[in-house]
Amino acid sequence: MTLEPRDPRYAERVRESFARQRFMATLGATLESVAPGEVRIAFTHRDELTQQHGFLHAGVLASVVDSACGYAALSLMEPGTGVLSIEFKINMLAPATGERFAAVGRVLRSGRTVTVCTGEAIALSDDGPVTVATMQATMMGVRREGVAD
Amino acid sequence: MTLEPRDPRYAERVRESFARQRFMATLGATLESVAPGEVRIAFTHRDELTQQHGFLHAGVLASVVDSACGYAALSLMEPGTGVLSIEFKINMLAPATGERFAAVGRVLRSGRTVTVCTGEAIALSDDGPVTVATMQATMMGVRREGVAD
Amino acid sequence: MTLEPRDPRYAERVRESFARQRFMATLGATLESVAPGEVRIAFTHRDELTQQHGFLHAGVLASVVDSACGYAALSLMEPGTGVLSIEFKINMLAPATGERFAAVGRVLRSGRTVTVCTGEAIALSDDGPVTVATMQATMMGVRREGVAD
Amino acid sequence: MTLEPRDPRYAERVRESFARQRFMATLGATLESVAPGEVRIAFTHRDELTQQHGFLHAGVLASVVDSACGYAALSLMEPGTGVLSIEFKINMLAPATGERFAAVGRVLRSGRTVTVCTGEAIALSDDGPVTVATMQATMMGVRREGVAD
Repeated sequence: MTLEPRDPRYAERVRESFARQRFMATLGATLESVAPGEVRIAFTHRDELTQQHGFLHAGVLASVVDSACGYAALSLMEPGTGVLSIEFKINMLAPATGERFAAVGRVLRSGRTVTVCTGEAIALSDDGPVTVATMQATMMGVRREGVAD
Repeated sequence: MTLEPRDPRYAERVRESFARQRFMATLGATLESVAPGEVRIAFTHRDELTQQHGFLHAGVLASVVDSACGYAALSLMEPGTGVLSIEFKINMLAPATGERFAAVGRVLRSGRTVTVCTGEAIALSDDGPVTVATMQATMMGVRREGVAD
Repeated sequence: MTLEPRDPRYAERVRESFARQRFMATLGATLESVAPGEVRIAFTHRDELTQQHGFLHAGVLASVVDSACGYAALSLMEPGTGVLSIEFKINMLAPATGERFAAVGRVLRSGRTVTVCTGEAIALSDDGPVTVATMQATMMGVRREGVAD
Repeated sequence: MTLEPRDPRYAERVRESFARQRFMATLGATLESVAPGEVRIAFTHRDELTQQHGFLHAGVLASVVDSACGYAALSLMEPGTGVLSIEFKINMLAPATGERFAAVGRVLRSGRTVTVCTGEAIALSDDGPVTVATMQATMMGVRREGVAD
């Protein structure tokens, strides 16, 4: 696997596409860093994102880690290609308590059509980082109207 | 597998717990029906839930189907037990276009500790229902402070 | 989704490819039926396929259901295309006890490149069928040397 | 998470249980190393383990990595507990070509009932190791007749 970006504008492209993800704004998630094959998103606890026990809903973790994985995949794709999630699987490792979180997505394999990523959601506190969820995701590069990134 | 509820108040319990899921309100999702081992949630397109191409974000589908699966599992659990998602895996089958959607969760196996569910997100239109995502999820019944449902 | 085969020779193609899967012979698995988008494989208990408690190893179930899903996908692919598993996820629902088993793979969505399938392993006995494992799988159609089916 | 084994005999227990997995012998897989929370299994190419294109069948990789994950989980479990796979998900990253392979399973979180593991299958050659498949798995510790390890 090469982590050489095929698009010199990869970072701007990821930033521009992230800015169009209305759902990330709804979750209060912000793009923290973009490197070839690795993207990091920051988010914080909000009561309107919780499940019935007061923890962040598993779907919130899945949403942000899915975006991190998708953009990690996009960072290695050719210009003119859009990224779509084919599937992802997430395991919850610990209750998502705390105030500050990060989602990290990393490319494991970048193929012509299919990209495989690993991701995690990390609770950040003064006691150090704790991984609260881990994801394995498959992304697809598509070239058709309406899905360019 | 028995679909006999172990709690005669199973439907109220699911409804009360769902009402405490702040994130479902944030997504505009409402509980449509509760049967032993099967729960259906309704939601609609909102621009603030979209990804960069204007479709519902995969994480939105995952969130609502995860809740449907979790509550399908809870509907068969003993009184005093809370439900937590251990893990789920979702495949996107078609872009989530359209206005109205349903998420359905169904129990495949209800064990003492672990419950396995299948779920789907369905786009509803005058042309008939289209399954846009399918999930396989594992839920756990827990008995400890702070997680009763 | 159309379940119209794109290759009139779809059934022979599946049968010929299955016959080349040396591992299916090693497991004693045989192709039972091929329909457009649905394939059924039969297998039986053998002591050399067991895990430490005497049940069939989860990997045996995964192997046969993966083949059933892959061939269900292939049955809808164009001539000259080969099928590869991108990923699969399997949940064990009950211990795989008993003598006779079937694995069934069904296509949920057949796209240009990616096919999504659902599968199950079923224990067969005089008391009726019991689903012991359920799978969600993603298959890819490839056109390159050495992988035609 | 603690990687402190709860059973001082953890390594012997894993070795004894592995020796009872008839299917590992059928695949020619051997236990290479056992550490608290990490198990490594060796296996080699055999023609009877291949799929239709001559690569190792995805199910072979899944079987060996599942065993590595299961025994990584068992290495941290209390005496008298048996291990069962609840579910696993595997992504194929590259065709499993080559002669020698290793499967590694590692515990990400060891809970009272549920253990979450990550695993990989690695092709070994003079050019260095190549990860050909990656797994995310959920294991359960059980205490009942017939499943002690």
